[in-house]
Amino acid sequence: MVDSVLAAHTIADKLEAARSASRTLSTLTTFQKNAALEAIARDVSAHASRIVEANERDLQRGRDSGMAEGLQDRLRLSTARIEQLSAAVRDIIDLADPVGTVVRGSVLPNGLSVSQVRVPFGVIGAIYEARPNVTIDIAALALKSGNAVVLRGGSAAENSNRILVEIIQSALHSVGVEPAAVQTIDEFGRDGAKALMQARGYVDVLIPRGSAQLIQTVVQESTVPVIETGAGIVHVFLDESADTSTAIEIVHNAKVQRPSVCNSLETLLVHEAAAERLIPAVLARLAESGVTIHADERARQLFPDALAAEDDAWSVEHLSLDIAVRVVAGLDAAIDHITKYSTKHTESIITNDLANADRFLAEVDSAVVMVNASTRFTDGAEFGFGAEVGISTQKLHARGPMGLPELTSTKWVVRGSGQVRS
Amino acid sequence: MVDSVLAAHTIADKLEAARSASRTLSTLTTFQKNAALEAIARDVSAHASRIVEANERDLQRGRDSGMAEGLQDRLRLSTARIEQLSAAVRDIIDLADPVGTVVRGSVLPNGLSVSQVRVPFGVIGAIYEARPNVTIDIAALALKSGNAVVLRGGSAAENSNRILVEIIQSALHSVGVEPAAVQTIDEFGRDGAKALMQARGYVDVLIPRGSAQLIQTVVQESTVPVIETGAGIVHVFLDESADTSTAIEIVHNAKVQRPSVCNSLETLLVHEAAAERLIPAVLARLAESGVTIHADERARQLFPDALAAEDDAWSVEHLSLDIAVRVVAGLDAAIDHITKYSTKHTESIITNDLANADRFLAEVDSAVVMVNASTRFTDGAEFGFGAEVGISTQKLHARGPMGLPELTSTKWVVRGSGQVRS
Repeated sequence: MVDSVLAAHTIADKLEAARSASRTLSTLTTFQKNAALEAIARDVSAHASRIVEANERDLQRGRDSGMAEGLQDRLRLSTARIEQLSAAVRDIIDLADPVGTVVRGSVLPNGLSVSQVRVPFGVIGAIYEARPNVTIDIAALALKSGNAVVLRGGSAAENSNRILVEIIQSALHSVGVEPAAVQTIDEFGRDGAKALMQARGYVDVLIPRGSAQLIQTVVQESTVPVIETGAGIVHVFLDESADTSTAIEIVHNAKVQRPSVCNSLETLLVHEAAAERLIPAVLARLAESGVTIHADERARQLFPDALAAEDDAWSVEHLSLDIAVRVVAGLDAAIDHITKYSTKHTESIITNDLANADRFLAEVDSAVVMVNASTRFTDGAEFGFGAEVGISTQKLHARGPMGLPELTSTKWVVRGSGQVRS
Repeated sequence: MVDSVLAAHTIADKLEAARSASRTLSTLTTFQKNAALEAIARDVSAHASRIVEANERDLQRGRDSGMAEGLQDRLRLSTARIEQLSAAVRDIIDLADPVGTVVRGSVLPNGLSVSQVRVPFGVIGAIYEARPNVTIDIAALALKSGNAVVLRGGSAAENSNRILVEIIQSALHSVGVEPAAVQTIDEFGRDGAKALMQARGYVDVLIPRGSAQLIQTVVQESTVPVIETGAGIVHVFLDESADTSTAIEIVHNAKVQRPSVCNSLETLLVHEAAAERLIPAVLARLAESGVTIHADERARQLFPDALAAEDDAWSVEHLSLDIAVRVVAGLDAAIDHITKYSTKHTESIITNDLANADRFLAEVDSAVVMVNASTRFTDGAEFGFGAEVGISTQKLHARGPMGLPELTSTKWVVRGSGQVRS
């Protein structure tokens, strides 16, 4: 179903083809990009049975090799999930196109008109695990922002990813967009991942998605600039003046509402002057919801059902119904703890003290800092970006929830009438 | 003249001290930072004779080891140059402080107030060559943007850098700012540079300044995110409709006004239909100013005084009064040439054809693209940024001339009243 040129021979061929496709992609109108996305949404739905079939081969191989149930679930593409994927692509059609946005501009004293304009990166590389939904997701986000994309998914999803990329390429071809704009290098295995990480000059930015270990490897080995979407050891600090019911509700929501995601609460810090008032009520509410509590000695005195905190309790991202609890001497001790253990994702203070709120917001060095709000709000959709490109925990280029504009660069456009520099 | 704590023992101690200093630095007011800069400007002037003395030891060592005249000149700090350094620090006082600027913000439907605010990176690492003026320059820019900085200058400038950092630290101390905010690791030699490039978690961004080779090494070896300030193989394309006198003036200005800098012209492309009209006049004007012309065969037919272009003529950044000249079939051929050989710094088209101007601006993928203007305008001061942090040729975080805002990251500040996610 795809052009024979696309059965490219080497990784270098594929990277070259992606780079070449990125040149035409960057000049497409929003209408043309939306038409491509609509064709992808249409074809993903239309070929659901073929996708399920390919996915079943991956799942069978997974079962044969003893893949864990949780990983199988992330790998699985049912007809219902394929419909959701198709719907997600249509949601991206509705997002504003960042390309061409003028970020700033002025006319210089010499009459030169200077403006900084959003442009696509060019080629985005994505390295991720055996979650074939990411294939569609990243491809659609890249296309909408005018970028070509080279995908390297987990080898356990190879058949699923291959058919998905074939469908995308065929859909692109049907609307006159260069199919090489979306490519997979899964067939090259580890060599492919290595080549992608060293493809300076061909790949403009690399986005790893998955476990902390995967991200660490990419950061270490890549010479291409990386946008790191990191783990979340997320803290809530209950200050002396925290309102009891606010504390109970926010801690419960931050821990229990969806414990498997990076913005969920991992470590609760409690001001010692409020520990007696807050700890029994806050932890009882968590325990009711089945949360396992790993607490320091002082907290266990106030809530004896808690387990003793392990040595590494403050450094663990559970992503499960587990929470670490520590009583601290006050705001300074809380900030010190966060500075030492946080992954700089999201931290929230529950307080009615304005000066303490301001200090927490100023001194905690995380992508998102909050007062009296659940950490679960750190999310592209909640922030109004529409789509979730990921949550950056680095400081360069993008920090916190990323929307489509974070998948673009800028260029300076200078219009003159013969000006020279004196 | 400096606290004994500052005579830190290991690279790790210094990095830890810089990280710790960055926490207090990030909360200083603009007044406090300006007072620190004023103290530095004052003390650099006051200690000019000590600086000249230390610099003379570096120069003597350079002469003894046969250092080239040009490198000696870049290393030299005369009293006049020290006064210029001091004045440059005072110029930075006048720049707007980017920290605290609200980039965007809104109130979400649930009442959460969300704003994205500029914050310092934290710790900036700088790796550069034996140019001691960079020591003062980077330190002042880092301080104004609320960042601590760890410096690794060229070993040939070790004595000069040591005294400059001592003066800076003493000046900081005198106004109550943590002296560890500015550190040098020159004494650790290559080990220091290596440690800096691997200091993830301690250093937030690394800025290499110097030769293409230095930058390449840092990009390859660093696990800390790098802002690449690259070389400039800069092109001007004379389109068929280019006005003759505009072409003559802009090419002359772009090549001759200051050939040693990255925004100067290296390769001139000429539309074949305008070659007969433009080449003799444009090249004659260059030759008058002592420019050596390396031209392809067609251009030499029209300007016989030119030398034959060497095999690598299109890939060389001369940074001297040399220019490569090529006649091309038209706009497409010009864009293809630029795509192949450009370092994506600055390119300019000279034309009166609106459609061609628009295509050039859209399709040339460089940090700065121009119509009818000299490439020499790619410059922070010319763009109105006041200071020159460097010109980024990468696409992540910053592209083109960088001002103080490019030395900052952002954080999201969320203010609620008990909101939880449903």
